[in-house]
Amino acid sequence: MAGGADRFQHECGLVGVWGHPEASTLAYLGLHALQHRGQEGAGIVASDGRQLYAHRARGLVQEVFGRRETLLPLKGDRAVGHVRYSTAGGTADVANVQPLVARFAGSGLAVAHNGNLVNAVSLRAELEAEGAIFQASSDTEIVVHLVARSKQRTLVNRVVDALTRVKGAWTLLLLTPTQMVAVRDPMGFRPLVLGRHPGGAWIFASETCALDLIEASYVRDVEPGEVVVVEQGGLTAFRPFPKQPPQQCVFEYLYFARPDTRLWGRDVYLARQRLGERLAKEQPAEADMVVPVPDSGVAAALGYARALGLPFELGLVRNHYVGRSFIEPSQQIRDFGVKLKLNPQPELLRGKRVVVVDDSLVRGTTCRKIVGILRRAGAVEVHLRIAAPPTTGPCYYGIDTPTREELIASRNEIAEIGRWVGADSIGYLSIEGMHQSVHGAEPAFCDACFSGRYPVLHEDLERRPQLPLFTERA
Amino acid sequence: MAGGADRFQHECGLVGVWGHPEASTLAYLGLHALQHRGQEGAGIVASDGRQLYAHRARGLVQEVFGRRETLLPLKGDRAVGHVRYSTAGGTADVANVQPLVARFAGSGLAVAHNGNLVNAVSLRAELEAEGAIFQASSDTEIVVHLVARSKQRTLVNRVVDALTRVKGAWTLLLLTPTQMVAVRDPMGFRPLVLGRHPGGAWIFASETCALDLIEASYVRDVEPGEVVVVEQGGLTAFRPFPKQPPQQCVFEYLYFARPDTRLWGRDVYLARQRLGERLAKEQPAEADMVVPVPDSGVAAALGYARALGLPFELGLVRNHYVGRSFIEPSQQIRDFGVKLKLNPQPELLRGKRVVVVDDSLVRGTTCRKIVGILRRAGAVEVHLRIAAPPTTGPCYYGIDTPTREELIASRNEIAEIGRWVGADSIGYLSIEGMHQSVHGAEPAFCDACFSGRYPVLHEDLERRPQLPLFTERA
Amino acid sequence: MAGGADRFQHECGLVGVWGHPEASTLAYLGLHALQHRGQEGAGIVASDGRQLYAHRARGLVQEVFGRRETLLPLKGDRAVGHVRYSTAGGTADVANVQPLVARFAGSGLAVAHNGNLVNAVSLRAELEAEGAIFQASSDTEIVVHLVARSKQRTLVNRVVDALTRVKGAWTLLLLTPTQMVAVRDPMGFRPLVLGRHPGGAWIFASETCALDLIEASYVRDVEPGEVVVVEQGGLTAFRPFPKQPPQQCVFEYLYFARPDTRLWGRDVYLARQRLGERLAKEQPAEADMVVPVPDSGVAAALGYARALGLPFELGLVRNHYVGRSFIEPSQQIRDFGVKLKLNPQPELLRGKRVVVVDDSLVRGTTCRKIVGILRRAGAVEVHLRIAAPPTTGPCYYGIDTPTREELIASRNEIAEIGRWVGADSIGYLSIEGMHQSVHGAEPAFCDACFSGRYPVLHEDLERRPQLPLFTERA
Amino acid sequence: MAGGADRFQHECGLVGVWGHPEASTLAYLGLHALQHRGQEGAGIVASDGRQLYAHRARGLVQEVFGRRETLLPLKGDRAVGHVRYSTAGGTADVANVQPLVARFAGSGLAVAHNGNLVNAVSLRAELEAEGAIFQASSDTEIVVHLVARSKQRTLVNRVVDALTRVKGAWTLLLLTPTQMVAVRDPMGFRPLVLGRHPGGAWIFASETCALDLIEASYVRDVEPGEVVVVEQGGLTAFRPFPKQPPQQCVFEYLYFARPDTRLWGRDVYLARQRLGERLAKEQPAEADMVVPVPDSGVAAALGYARALGLPFELGLVRNHYVGRSFIEPSQQIRDFGVKLKLNPQPELLRGKRVVVVDDSLVRGTTCRKIVGILRRAGAVEVHLRIAAPPTTGPCYYGIDTPTREELIASRNEIAEIGRWVGADSIGYLSIEGMHQSVHGAEPAFCDACFSGRYPVLHEDLERRPQLPLFTERA
Repeated sequence: MAGGADRFQHECGLVGVWGHPEASTLAYLGLHALQHRGQEGAGIVASDGRQLYAHRARGLVQEVFGRRETLLPLKGDRAVGHVRYSTAGGTADVANVQPLVARFAGSGLAVAHNGNLVNAVSLRAELEAEGAIFQASSDTEIVVHLVARSKQRTLVNRVVDALTRVKGAWTLLLLTPTQMVAVRDPMGFRPLVLGRHPGGAWIFASETCALDLIEASYVRDVEPGEVVVVEQGGLTAFRPFPKQPPQQCVFEYLYFARPDTRLWGRDVYLARQRLGERLAKEQPAEADMVVPVPDSGVAAALGYARALGLPFELGLVRNHYVGRSFIEPSQQIRDFGVKLKLNPQPELLRGKRVVVVDDSLVRGTTCRKIVGILRRAGAVEVHLRIAAPPTTGPCYYGIDTPTREELIASRNEIAEIGRWVGADSIGYLSIEGMHQSVHGAEPAFCDACFSGRYPVLHEDLERRPQLPLFTERA
Repeated sequence: MAGGADRFQHECGLVGVWGHPEASTLAYLGLHALQHRGQEGAGIVASDGRQLYAHRARGLVQEVFGRRETLLPLKGDRAVGHVRYSTAGGTADVANVQPLVARFAGSGLAVAHNGNLVNAVSLRAELEAEGAIFQASSDTEIVVHLVARSKQRTLVNRVVDALTRVKGAWTLLLLTPTQMVAVRDPMGFRPLVLGRHPGGAWIFASETCALDLIEASYVRDVEPGEVVVVEQGGLTAFRPFPKQPPQQCVFEYLYFARPDTRLWGRDVYLARQRLGERLAKEQPAEADMVVPVPDSGVAAALGYARALGLPFELGLVRNHYVGRSFIEPSQQIRDFGVKLKLNPQPELLRGKRVVVVDDSLVRGTTCRKIVGILRRAGAVEVHLRIAAPPTTGPCYYGIDTPTREELIASRNEIAEIGRWVGADSIGYLSIEGMHQSVHGAEPAFCDACFSGRYPVLHEDLERRPQLPLFTERA
Repeated sequence: MAGGADRFQHECGLVGVWGHPEASTLAYLGLHALQHRGQEGAGIVASDGRQLYAHRARGLVQEVFGRRETLLPLKGDRAVGHVRYSTAGGTADVANVQPLVARFAGSGLAVAHNGNLVNAVSLRAELEAEGAIFQASSDTEIVVHLVARSKQRTLVNRVVDALTRVKGAWTLLLLTPTQMVAVRDPMGFRPLVLGRHPGGAWIFASETCALDLIEASYVRDVEPGEVVVVEQGGLTAFRPFPKQPPQQCVFEYLYFARPDTRLWGRDVYLARQRLGERLAKEQPAEADMVVPVPDSGVAAALGYARALGLPFELGLVRNHYVGRSFIEPSQQIRDFGVKLKLNPQPELLRGKRVVVVDDSLVRGTTCRKIVGILRRAGAVEVHLRIAAPPTTGPCYYGIDTPTREELIASRNEIAEIGRWVGADSIGYLSIEGMHQSVHGAEPAFCDACFSGRYPVLHEDLERRPQLPLFTERA
Repeated sequence: MAGGADRFQHECGLVGVWGHPEASTLAYLGLHALQHRGQEGAGIVASDGRQLYAHRARGLVQEVFGRRETLLPLKGDRAVGHVRYSTAGGTADVANVQPLVARFAGSGLAVAHNGNLVNAVSLRAELEAEGAIFQASSDTEIVVHLVARSKQRTLVNRVVDALTRVKGAWTLLLLTPTQMVAVRDPMGFRPLVLGRHPGGAWIFASETCALDLIEASYVRDVEPGEVVVVEQGGLTAFRPFPKQPPQQCVFEYLYFARPDTRLWGRDVYLARQRLGERLAKEQPAEADMVVPVPDSGVAAALGYARALGLPFELGLVRNHYVGRSFIEPSQQIRDFGVKLKLNPQPELLRGKRVVVVDDSLVRGTTCRKIVGILRRAGAVEVHLRIAAPPTTGPCYYGIDTPTREELIASRNEIAEIGRWVGADSIGYLSIEGMHQSVHGAEPAFCDACFSGRYPVLHEDLERRPQLPLFTERA
């Protein structure tokens, strides 16, 4: 895909391993498969049943864990791992790299979190008033405080007790020397699956592609509202929270999950093809070819092209060696950032009417550049098709999105957007079309960023925003 | 694409800039666009007309040059840059990173080379007998020695004089403080194009995609046997070598060049599509879908699918975060290396008859793993189609290939290969089909690795192989 | 000096700057002067009156802060800095690098600590029972929890309230955006001085050598039990704690403090000379020369030699390039670690009777090697003199010492020690002699590690030791 | 010592090991002992009798070789190592890191060099005219070219043949897979000793302190003009060059060699004491104490103090943690560079008349700062004594010295220098006094930098200086 800040950003990926002599190595490989869910930092906490062993740092999984001497001290047959999303600014607080570790009941507790709380500010204020100290700015620390303050006796009961107080999206993996606990919030915003390694080890992972890499088989999803506990005696599961209608994140299908993941019972790649097919029906175009924005728009473009019988062509070539920052000459190069990553095929495009398909449109700046690149490469018509509805609101449930003001669709008519990006026509998918494409069944998915129907109120929005605790370069 | 040692390896990429105040920054961006031609090392030598300024190191372009303080000291309005291929073993001699710099006529001479000499051993022996010293093992050092020993007066005449003695493939960029010289050998094995930057600067590059990134326009190819000299007064060109039938490398079309490059008058992406279409005619298959080995097999697979009216599907998903080395658990994971990079889509493949299209087949080990992965994902039939003829011989003209013994097609019948990789059927493109697809015109291309028709004798083959000068870890 | 694990280890060094536009640069230079107090990690937290800016990492001060882009983001005219001691094992918990930062009263609070609490285990248990979470194993976190839980209103009152609960050694620097607070425990184990920069900025530092480097003048010591508060309006000081007899650490004079520091009214270098002179009177030796163990034994050896009229000779040469770890051939080199650092002068030593003077004797292993080295270099007699009394007990007040069992003097007669290290004679300083040498006045110093008179009971000793929270490699 | 650019700089250190299974580890330890002779870069080339294995990089020995995976590939029982001096500017040409390796007689030749040729420019010009190419700017490359061009048959004869053409200072270690050759030029400017490891391995080293560390015993010096050859059959030595009066570098005694080295039959530390004693006789001072400039002035100051019966005091404390570059606040700190390294002891110095003893005076800028520091610390008189004669000329034989114009003694009367540095009196040692102190015997030493009696004419001085080949940041 094409442009960092002009996409929704992943929040996090989780992996847990219980019962394998090289648990931290499996966790490391699992994190690698989940690297697309977070490129800012990575951490693994392992245990041999007595103590926790941790290593956490900023960087890609391979940068953080790619040396045997880093993995070896992470001893034991159980481990949890975490990858963290990449912030826009490029600098971030090293104290936020997860799993968070805290002393608990005389030993340690590690917590890895994917999601976002909507009552974090008020909970933090309340906890601070009671004398809790916060050393970082992640919501995870709130969960740990609540667990620590619970009057319940067992870890599991304390976790449940704590989670009755938090609102929002929280998929969690917790590890003590003797237990691993996996939880999804009752609405199930973020995914988590349970798998089994051939040798018998239990595996938890945000996506099935992590199971595939380590040759574990998929057992089942951790269900919304479910708590799964693994310990010496085996695995137990229960549902301590009041049942609520599920609100799984539809954007996982549209852009986040890896195409080779099977998410909530559906193959992501096929879902994206169906999005493209439906888009073709709703928003057809007369054109000579369909060109995806690589890599994220490819599956939808294939479906779009197939539905209309148009040729599918890789009219934009992606350069996979592009890193995070680049030195540009002082006489600036037009559309530099996009051009580094995408180069057009003029021979193919010259004189042609082109449909370009992308997975979503956030700020619109990248699409605008892509339209310009296609035109300068000779396309006589450029029809922009978005395999998603207009993004009109931010996500409060674990995705790093621009503010509402920055979302081009929140303040413009669709036709106006089309003019601004310079397309001859523009077409979005309908919300209904999206739901029918991804799943076909009843809409059990959160579509708040498209529909404005937020399933949980964001309580902190009313409050004065808190200052960041501090700014740290790692 | 999928497997390091199981592909032909790029040898090098070149870029030259003359007449731009930020020449080294443009060279750096150009090298970035040519990164696919060499990932082992990168170097830039710049000049302000008085002195040379050099920086060369092992690593990717961004690792070597990604900080302003590295580029800034490379002063002046002229620069040559070089990327070097990645060796299998991962360790290599830092003394080989180019451009090579030597004292010449009281100042410096930088030489960047793409290609391979077939009389290197005898020339080196001859030069050593005359007292020349070699500090590294690249052929480039031979060229510099010959230039230094020429009795001619001017740099250009010395270069021409030197090049009459070398045989094989040599595309060169040379820089002194006052001149830049670009040369292609008379058979023109390796590509080099001339471009012009909007501000008037002359640009040389191995591929047109480097021109695109820095917004330079393509002017023309440097022709086989041509010497182009740029200096204060402007650009002059001449052809001092006896004319020979061109032998441009057909493999550049098949695998090496970036798909968005226009090579020798043809768009690479479209050429690859034609290869796939022709392959469909020569080696059709009854199947439910066509799956490319990403990324290098995508264009050919598109052509193949289109010609037969079969669905094109991304049945293998590539993980782009994969680095060079990985830690594996001691209980090994089956097909670990390939699996890290490619994950199948079982939902898509289950119960299906699949044609998998790759760009070439070298040792066969990667293809064998891919066939296995597809089968385990549920494909009921796997038909392997290679958008190239059987690779029966090594390349002596600048590509790092396995020995003849390691080339599976050099010692096996095609059917036997198919059985070994586990495919239900296997099909290669014919040599004639390949030539007609890439260009359509008379076969002006070297196809020695397929046909065994080597246009220049490899003189060193008869000789006892030389020991490496030394082994150095950088 | 000679041998890592065979010395008492420094615990920490502190610096604070208030009122200088380049506060973090001054803090960095101050930490550099205090590098001998801790080589494991370094941190600076700065503030511009609104927010805190932090950078903390493992490594030497120059490694952590030696680049302008690291210091520049630490904005503002106030800063606190910290260096941390080096652990024996070489690996340690990155979460322990100070200053610790926590959210406090809507903004941030940074705490830097030198010392050790003797009721840490019970306080931590008590706080944990109340639901406090601990993310690292330093005592500092306990102080922050107590501050956060205090029912007092102002920061200063909360700090005082918190400190009434802790026992042991605590010299602290605290920073919020609007206040800096410096405190020493009522017994004053660890030093802290107040200085003034020519431009008017207030400086706090563990030792006066930090003032010297940044050209600040010494104003006065922060007194035992004193709280000094700096804010917009200026500096105020008060003594909220019950007065107790001072127990300043005599070991600071013997080994820890830099010789150019003026500590508690006395010059350290001169104090060490007096220790050597007194040692000469108490434990004279008939010999041809006095040789110090460089660098820490030099001043005492000078005093010893002068008192007896013996030649002072550098018979052991120290190699200052020695790093932390070394590769040794498999056929081991005798006394490898010491030999890397110290080489004898055989020409000087051959046939001579040598007095070797060291600052202290902990495990005895290094001294034993040194005696062997001197003998093999030709010394006919080796008389070991220690410019301190026998070390019979561990320190509980902020110094990293071996256990009592590892202290050779805790379980052996002096003569026995002499035989074990291979010396012809051995002599220690008396406790009385030590006190009279360092200060001359009444013994206002803690000498527990020599006398066993511990001024504060170590409450945690009775308790079961806590497991480390976790082990982390940074 | 105190100030980088205000000292003569070491040129290089050499070590050779023949016949030990861990030759490269011994070479690494030997280089460590010689680290004071060069801090810019380090290299080792080893051989197993068949091939050469090399690793060379910029940095300290421990930085370059401190990991087992770097040493392990340097296989075989023979190795040569090299450390290189630190340049003032901090940037330098990576191509200059030694040992230089070149192809020779079908395998490799490694050359490590300590010294400087005085006919390098003319030799290089001559060789270039014959077509030789130079890839770096070190004199070593000239030697290799001459060896390669010699018409002699054997390596040893070629080396001898080559060395008859070069003039100046050249102590060399050469290694091929089957031979090691050690040579000193006929005047013997730079030292080289032969030692023997307990297991029988032959060791060469620039100084005996390298033998000590690896527990090798000193056998004898390699004599001026001697060629020592080690091969399978054993060690042979011969003297092929016309005998000349020795001109060993007296500065090695004064400042370069480590004090624990035994150089040309004399202990360096004792020689420096005698220099101080003689200085006391020639240039006595009425004072209260003698203070050395640490560390290099310590031995001479001891001798000076002892001769006059004055107290020896460490009035300046050196900070050993100082790295190469430092960040200074924009309001500059007076004498920043020196102050980082040296802090005075005001308590000791206040009101006192101080003799400060340094080993040499080059530009005078550091001494001037030191005098100022002592005065501001309270010294009422500062008498500067230099344990060397006035340095009036540069060295052409392997030491990096300032130009003649920068040498304060080359253009000023001694009294004038004393006034400029701010001393109450100044005193140098006489040349005769120096010679008698270091050796007592006939003056077999080069003292050109003091006396102007250059034993070999610097032929290149008349010539136009050559441009650097190129500038490279490593």
